[in-house]
Amino acid sequence: MMNNLLKGKRGIITGALDKNSIAWKIAEKAHEQGATFVLTNAPIAMRMGEINELAEKTGSQIIPADATNTEDLENLYTKAQEILGGKIDFVLHSIGMSVNIRKNIPYVDSNYDYFMKGVDVSALSLHKMLSVAKHLDAINEGGSVVALTYMAAQRTYPFYTDMADIKAMLESIARSFGYHYGVEKKVRINTVSQSPTKTTAGTGIKGFNDFYDYADAIAPLGNADAESCADYCITLFSDLTRMVTMQNLFHDGGYSSTGVSAKVMDMLYPEHE
Amino acid sequence: MMNNLLKGKRGIITGALDKNSIAWKIAEKAHEQGATFVLTNAPIAMRMGEINELAEKTGSQIIPADATNTEDLENLYTKAQEILGGKIDFVLHSIGMSVNIRKNIPYVDSNYDYFMKGVDVSALSLHKMLSVAKHLDAINEGGSVVALTYMAAQRTYPFYTDMADIKAMLESIARSFGYHYGVEKKVRINTVSQSPTKTTAGTGIKGFNDFYDYADAIAPLGNADAESCADYCITLFSDLTRMVTMQNLFHDGGYSSTGVSAKVMDMLYPEHE
Amino acid sequence: MMNNLLKGKRGIITGALDKNSIAWKIAEKAHEQGATFVLTNAPIAMRMGEINELAEKTGSQIIPADATNTEDLENLYTKAQEILGGKIDFVLHSIGMSVNIRKNIPYVDSNYDYFMKGVDVSALSLHKMLSVAKHLDAINEGGSVVALTYMAAQRTYPFYTDMADIKAMLESIARSFGYHYGVEKKVRINTVSQSPTKTTAGTGIKGFNDFYDYADAIAPLGNADAESCADYCITLFSDLTRMVTMQNLFHDGGYSSTGVSAKVMDMLYPEHE
Amino acid sequence: MMNNLLKGKRGIITGALDKNSIAWKIAEKAHEQGATFVLTNAPIAMRMGEINELAEKTGSQIIPADATNTEDLENLYTKAQEILGGKIDFVLHSIGMSVNIRKNIPYVDSNYDYFMKGVDVSALSLHKMLSVAKHLDAINEGGSVVALTYMAAQRTYPFYTDMADIKAMLESIARSFGYHYGVEKKVRINTVSQSPTKTTAGTGIKGFNDFYDYADAIAPLGNADAESCADYCITLFSDLTRMVTMQNLFHDGGYSSTGVSAKVMDMLYPEHE
Repeated sequence: MMNNLLKGKRGIITGALDKNSIAWKIAEKAHEQGATFVLTNAPIAMRMGEINELAEKTGSQIIPADATNTEDLENLYTKAQEILGGKIDFVLHSIGMSVNIRKNIPYVDSNYDYFMKGVDVSALSLHKMLSVAKHLDAINEGGSVVALTYMAAQRTYPFYTDMADIKAMLESIARSFGYHYGVEKKVRINTVSQSPTKTTAGTGIKGFNDFYDYADAIAPLGNADAESCADYCITLFSDLTRMVTMQNLFHDGGYSSTGVSAKVMDMLYPEHE
Repeated sequence: MMNNLLKGKRGIITGALDKNSIAWKIAEKAHEQGATFVLTNAPIAMRMGEINELAEKTGSQIIPADATNTEDLENLYTKAQEILGGKIDFVLHSIGMSVNIRKNIPYVDSNYDYFMKGVDVSALSLHKMLSVAKHLDAINEGGSVVALTYMAAQRTYPFYTDMADIKAMLESIARSFGYHYGVEKKVRINTVSQSPTKTTAGTGIKGFNDFYDYADAIAPLGNADAESCADYCITLFSDLTRMVTMQNLFHDGGYSSTGVSAKVMDMLYPEHE
Repeated sequence: MMNNLLKGKRGIITGALDKNSIAWKIAEKAHEQGATFVLTNAPIAMRMGEINELAEKTGSQIIPADATNTEDLENLYTKAQEILGGKIDFVLHSIGMSVNIRKNIPYVDSNYDYFMKGVDVSALSLHKMLSVAKHLDAINEGGSVVALTYMAAQRTYPFYTDMADIKAMLESIARSFGYHYGVEKKVRINTVSQSPTKTTAGTGIKGFNDFYDYADAIAPLGNADAESCADYCITLFSDLTRMVTMQNLFHDGGYSSTGVSAKVMDMLYPEHE
Repeated sequence: MMNNLLKGKRGIITGALDKNSIAWKIAEKAHEQGATFVLTNAPIAMRMGEINELAEKTGSQIIPADATNTEDLENLYTKAQEILGGKIDFVLHSIGMSVNIRKNIPYVDSNYDYFMKGVDVSALSLHKMLSVAKHLDAINEGGSVVALTYMAAQRTYPFYTDMADIKAMLESIARSFGYHYGVEKKVRINTVSQSPTKTTAGTGIKGFNDFYDYADAIAPLGNADAESCADYCITLFSDLTRMVTMQNLFHDGGYSSTGVSAKVMDMLYPEHE
């Protein structure tokens, strides 16, 4: 569907690793809706073959940047403005990494160097992206920043380990910075708390597939997929949501507001009723 | 801006009393976005001169209905489907009335007949609109229902009296019914918690103007106005938000996530920096 | 355990139907902690044999009162003060009734007369108890009011039907009235959101036993029982919590903050690890 | 008031810097209630003259420990058990420090080394205290851990800068660890979100006094002071709250549930009504 919702808007999209990435879908949808943007990823995370395909498809350029490095981010915003011909209107933060999860380290045994690395990469990176942008005055008035998060920030999921705490910080940074950037430039900052999604990152979490099925059975509409998440993010980048800021927005088919579903009760207690 | 976001969609819009109504703006925006719809109001609340103007402007018909009366609602859905040529895709619930507020009765002295009347008109009316729709199977799969609410449901504002408790119930009904309608028909139901708005209803609350200014000074983006609220509701009626349900969504310029603003501190304590 | 936490305090305890009632345990604990109190119930709900036993055991008198009837409530407070020899220090609201649940009516088909009856009995009764108390100036400065509620007010449990919406209103009334009574008399009002509990009322809900087991498997500490709930309410009636008001307090073994437990995942997907 | 609520219980209390500290009051109250405990602080933060006075008054020993250092923490738990003669029943985490605040650095310009230092000292320290305790099996079944926090974790207060984000992480760690420690040992972990308090740390925040007055004028009961907070923490350490875990508990005179008070509206708009 083409609605020109982002016509004339310029963006920066992080985190498009491969076709399963939510960021990948967002890039496709933003392109369809008339936006121009640059793609960026940490040099270490880039799979050049794949992201080149996306760049080509969407007429975008790729600017490698380590989001924990403010110099890289300065370069990113400067180049992005040159390439796109003006200030930035929207930014997608889709950056998350936990070495503790990757190495299957139980939460109570978290390695603190890994924990701090996770904080830096997955949470402070948002602060850095916003701080650099603000100092360079790189985002237009009314611009929109969205960071992807997960409900483990509110309720414990044993397998999500330190990312739960890091996402809680990420969501707080969105609120805190949203206040300051809102007051000064009407830039708004929100987090989208997405259903478990079959991305390459998501499926790397131990027990993910079972949990995906459980969440799908709880949510009245089922789990939200990457494509619907991309559509939702498009609305948040558009001017139609210009007064929404500092919110954590659940995009989850109703999961977050469902205590338990009849379906899960039937799975657990099939003999009854 | 025309994006055809609601192209081909059929709706029912309640609560368009006059040009200051949020519902009025939503009708205008929905029309711009390609929707067709019927307008409805309680016979007692209709100001025919004004709503006729809106009907004419948007090519809509008016079906009077008392939203506390299930027969009226059956007639509403039946006629609306005849007029619009098919099932309904979106419904706006913008119905609220407190006799206790109107009569300036302090909260602790609430008259219970008025309180119950408020529950019926302002909260149960949503349940009735949904129940009738479901029994008539009048809403399309994936249809979207939005009810307008206010943050007094979460935090106390002394002047809002019994409407706070009634809005808390309204938001709960949206969640409860959202579960059932979601499971069966993927119909989604959300509430939009809007900034204080200079509608005819809003300005009738004692002390409203001062409170409006206070809220405006807290919110980093200032209070959201009726027009931006209408734009936001359009996104919620569109397919782009098809996986968002059972949520209470703050549309308030960041007010709900701001503890206090520098501006309000300066107003209160001007001598200090 | 006797700690004299409520030594010299006078109370009113509603809802002690039988030995399984949370209110019954609260009465026993309050007695142990040095309080004196009256017991009350709707005349229609009283099982005289049983409540007489409690009255005897705790040296209490019983004052029948329909909590939807303000004259009954005036009589209750007046008599209670006479009997106990002074103003009231604590009030327990443990009153809930849904005809829709009793009659197994699905939520979407809720009967509205029953719904309104539920609102009156289960939510407005709290407002009435507080309003009458305030007009009679029957509660001491710093007094404490606790109403029992359930988390269905925040998240949907299909079987809880209209009580979810009614409890949402109850919790809002606690906040709203808590503001006014707090400002004027430092009376504080909180709700305790309790685990599913094997009371006579609870077990009457269809599917209760399965749900009890599910909640027990989610909560890291398991479901909280009536006795621990009573202990918790004692702390809320004591002066040690004198600055806690307008809160909804989860007493649930951690259930509310647990997304999913390893135990439930193992029940659902036993073949995996 | 002596109720023997903590009779026979052994504790560890961090953060008692001077007589204004909440932790200081908690130590006094815990002593009154029959507990024995050790006091601890970072060697760098200790003001030996003062803490010695507290130690003497409460018959406690002082074990210096840097809560970011797991070896120090191992020593702390080992020594504490030796001194107190058994496993620990309660732990108070009252540790917070932001160099960005101390140096008056605006939030958007946060220094990231300071930010990370704040994360380590103020949030990860809780994880470390719990992880070390769990590995040493140093906390009794049913033990209780309380960490002090502030509502900036939910809503933005411009002057609170990076501590907002760090407190959000702290509260998440309490939930996350609360799950694991709860499942295995029924140890419960909660955070208490306290009113602005005139502690030595609190008053160091720029603009604190004005904000203290503002919060006091919003809260129906006024700001909660250190002494009432101490009383509340005693209830959380006691067995009476044995089923409360993974909660963030507001101890704030109703502030968190008050949108605006009549008093603040009068301060801002004195001419009206």
